[in-house]
Amino acid sequence: MGAHAALTCPHCGRTISAYRNPAPTVDIIIAYGGGVVLIRRKNPPHGWALPGGFVDYGESVEQAAVREAKEETNLEVDGLRLLGVYSDPARDPRGHTISTVFAARGLGDLKGQDDAAEAAVFTLDHLPEPLAFDHARILADYREHVCTST
Amino acid sequence: MGAHAALTCPHCGRTISAYRNPAPTVDIIIAYGGGVVLIRRKNPPHGWALPGGFVDYGESVEQAAVREAKEETNLEVDGLRLLGVYSDPARDPRGHTISTVFAARGLGDLKGQDDAAEAAVFTLDHLPEPLAFDHARILADYREHVCTST
Repeated sequence: MGAHAALTCPHCGRTISAYRNPAPTVDIIIAYGGGVVLIRRKNPPHGWALPGGFVDYGESVEQAAVREAKEETNLEVDGLRLLGVYSDPARDPRGHTISTVFAARGLGDLKGQDDAAEAAVFTLDHLPEPLAFDHARILADYREHVCTST
Repeated sequence: MGAHAALTCPHCGRTISAYRNPAPTVDIIIAYGGGVVLIRRKNPPHGWALPGGFVDYGESVEQAAVREAKEETNLEVDGLRLLGVYSDPARDPRGHTISTVFAARGLGDLKGQDDAAEAAVFTLDHLPEPLAFDHARILADYREHVCTST
């Protein structure tokens, strides 16, 4: 099931095949102000989504979660805990991503920025639509996790 | 913290810079015959290790875990559950990998094959040395997890 990506050589213009891995990402469910924080995406796919993004080479998934939360929502996150790993090849229309999903508490002043056109707090009973990617499923799993662990 | 990898164009021989992501991997702690299954690695880094490997583009982490367990140990795995995500950039001397680690039960006849020179069963009290990558830490976390959940 390996796959190769086609790159174009900028020097000679011909095509090169390079081995292609799924891309690691993180998403963070931030409990804040009586609900969870979602961002309205500035870039496609549009809609509301959990804060998150690609893991950089050389950073851990925990570091990526803290960085992305800060970049997109201005919040510090505390008490990161692993919720799950979501890796269905169809979860992101742009290509195959593997998301490590954390839950955490948010601290500070909420402000949508960077890839977020807007950031807002929603209760699990009143989530906005559409939710991008597989984030409706992730939030349903989180709801079940919260309800069974309290 | 983004990083670029250097590729060589096979047509003109010049160097191309391509964006480099950490590579997703899986490792599986297989409970079998009163212990856990480890393999002796055929390729560097040498030593004993959990069965596992790179996640292919287009497969889920669960599918990768089932495939790698079969390829390296000949076992079917049942009852996959997530133990954790290990992503320290220094965990693999070959480059930055992010491992989704599962625990499962093994079924069938154990046989070391593919990347495994040998496969054997060890109790958590008598693990072999050296253990490659961060697998000593993963097994310590598993031991704590098993002891606190039973």
